Amino acid sequence: MKFEEKLSKIVEKNNSLLCVGLDIDEDKIKNQNLLEFNKKIIDETKDLVCAYKLNMAFYEVLGKEGYEILEKTIQHIPKEIIVILDGKRNDIGNTAKKYAKSLFETLKSDAVTVNPYLGFDGIKPFLDYKDKCSFILCRTSNPSAKDLQDLQTSEGSVFEEVANKIKEWNKHGYCGAVVGATYPEELKIIRCILGENMPLLIPGIGAQGGDVEKTVKNGTNKQGLNAIINSSRGIIYSKNPRESALSLRDKINKYR
Amino acid sequence: MKFEEKLSKIVEKNNSLLCVGLDIDEDKIKNQNLLEFNKKIIDETKDLVCAYKLNMAFYEVLGKEGYEILEKTIQHIPKEIIVILDGKRNDIGNTAKKYAKSLFETLKSDAVTVNPYLGFDGIKPFLDYKDKCSFILCRTSNPSAKDLQDLQTSEGSVFEEVANKIKEWNKHGYCGAVVGATYPEELKIIRCILGENMPLLIPGIGAQGGDVEKTVKNGTNKQGLNAIINSSRGIIYSKNPRESALSLRDKINKYR
Repeated sequence: MKFEEKLSKIVEKNNSLLCVGLDIDEDKIKNQNLLEFNKKIIDETKDLVCAYKLNMAFYEVLGKEGYEILEKTIQHIPKEIIVILDGKRNDIGNTAKKYAKSLFETLKSDAVTVNPYLGFDGIKPFLDYKDKCSFILCRTSNPSAKDLQDLQTSEGSVFEEVANKIKEWNKHGYCGAVVGATYPEELKIIRCILGENMPLLIPGIGAQGGDVEKTVKNGTNKQGLNAIINSSRGIIYSKNPRESALSLRDKINKYR
Repeated sequence: MKFEEKLSKIVEKNNSLLCVGLDIDEDKIKNQNLLEFNKKIIDETKDLVCAYKLNMAFYEVLGKEGYEILEKTIQHIPKEIIVILDGKRNDIGNTAKKYAKSLFETLKSDAVTVNPYLGFDGIKPFLDYKDKCSFILCRTSNPSAKDLQDLQTSEGSVFEEVANKIKEWNKHGYCGAVVGATYPEELKIIRCILGENMPLLIPGIGAQGGDVEKTVKNGTNKQGLNAIINSSRGIIYSKNPRESALSLRDKINKYR
């Protein structure tokens, strides 16, 4: 099934644009089995989300064991829900191909995040997977995002140039863009450049301080769709993850 | 031992600026044990190099087994030789910290490659490891490098702005820069911006077509030092890896 179709089915079924970030941090989850922690979160939230996002750093730091937890967590996610591997990978063509194979084939994800600094030939191997989606970093959610992404060029700023490139690269395969909820004005500009049909992956809600109303208004398209809004720490470390997910899903829906 | 000291000792001992890239590709190494392949390359070249670089994509694609090969290959590298983990990692501060821990502590590398698109707070967790070196992508070796890196700003181009940022970030920890041998003019400009004391990691010699003479002349400092010149495919897949490494080391030395 194509990514667009899978996304639109699950968004409709669960009436949700919410993505839960399974960023297991061993410093925070003490005396608990990490795989069981993830499985519990999935079991409690699987009717409330459209996607799960796994940031690879949290698994990589655990070594071989982490790789196994990553694999088994993905296996536990119901087939109808989107799996996003957030690795922000980037390399030259020959090597990017290995990353693409690793994330899409070995780990069986539906979507990945990719860094655009190397230009098109580092992106192309991901786009060769026609049924998948490659979310390209455009405007990241962190305070230092401005260091490079706000540099001014004759056409605007670097993040606007990247948005224009993503639009161009989208002709070769299915692209999305990553835009932080912490920058609502930039989110509006990027949605405008990318048009109605491109999905945006929007982290930065919750612990990072992004505003839900502005995120939904500026990030979704005219149908209130094509935005995947991620919260990690705010849900998985809350006292009641199901309650937190339900409440955030409903808050998002209120503004759609 | 600090990175600078370790690098200068091994460069002197082996009279070499050569780095061999252990990019094991299962499509090319058929019917051979990949760990044994790496060990053999190391045994045959360890008196000819200053560093080994392991591009993580080639290990990641092999799953859990790849992680084990990565770990055991690093263990097989003599302690006096620099180990560079080429993962081009990048994430927001909280998460970048996990990557830094994974590469410097769990995998015990001396140096890593990092992507600058997220700005300083994605770089800082790597710089907190004071004895290590973080090579920040400045000008990559691939043809599409120009897509973003050549965008013109009021101060020059994006890669020059990145070079200026690296100089600034270097105050918080020990930075290096990655500059492709395939762009000798840009290499000259970057060496000029970064000064004499910053190590450059220079891939792109060999299979990618970078010229050795220009690379050495434009990439080293006035003492003919602080450049780590990488060749991967051109050495590890050659008929006689020792001969190829010896010949490239001597060719590099001819122009220092």
